[in-house]
Amino acid sequence: MKSILDEISWNDAGLVPAIAQQHDTGKVLMVAWMNREALETTINEGRAVYFSRSRQKLWRKGEESGHVQWLKEIRIDCDSDVVLMQVEQIGGIACHTGRHNCFYKRLENGQWIEVEPVLKDQHEIYGSS
Amino acid sequence: MKSILDEISWNDAGLVPAIAQQHDTGKVLMVAWMNREALETTINEGRAVYFSRSRQKLWRKGEESGHVQWLKEIRIDCDSDVVLMQVEQIGGIACHTGRHNCFYKRLENGQWIEVEPVLKDQHEIYGSS
Repeated sequence: MKSILDEISWNDAGLVPAIAQQHDTGKVLMVAWMNREALETTINEGRAVYFSRSRQKLWRKGEESGHVQWLKEIRIDCDSDVVLMQVEQIGGIACHTGRHNCFYKRLENGQWIEVEPVLKDQHEIYGSS
Repeated sequence: MKSILDEISWNDAGLVPAIAQQHDTGKVLMVAWMNREALETTINEGRAVYFSRSRQKLWRKGEESGHVQWLKEIRIDCDSDVVLMQVEQIGGIACHTGRHNCFYKRLENGQWIEVEPVLKDQHEIYGSS
């Protein structure tokens, strides 16, 4: 495992961006960050585990929402500084806003327009406490 | 244009990661970085223009190789800190190594294995001078 992790070009903060792509549709679901431990845990547990920069700790995607991303395949790019995962998105919702994916703002006529529906209310996903 | 750019959450270096995805196959071709000028130029010229961190200047993808990425659609994510482009990859080669895309190293049995063929020799792409 050490050599796999050593081959990654971590940035100055010890992170790399990681893309999650729905394996059968090709939809790009989201991008988040991983540190060494997050990538190691992702590989060991077969599910996407990120590093939350705001909370400064591991973030097992779906730990609260149930929207786990099961890992089908993992790749790195030519510079070894970006991770690309093929995943199975449980619940069909990757975004904390309750949408299928995070890329729901499309440029149209000089404005970012929301073009993807909210599938589930945020309060329903995370509780309303 | 100003408001479109102002909505982006630029990082401390004034950059955001930008993903180029082949519009009809969903293949993730590459990830590079954009500053304000790069994103503005991308939108104005309808082609992917990145900011080269190593050369510290705009990088019109394909300016040397001819492997231009024509823009079909552009989106941002929920946090407005990642750009996702649907592109038409001219020449079918996005990677400077001469491969279709940059994500050619797949994790297999504890190793990163090169799984995508080189379609064109680098010297042929960039000249051998």
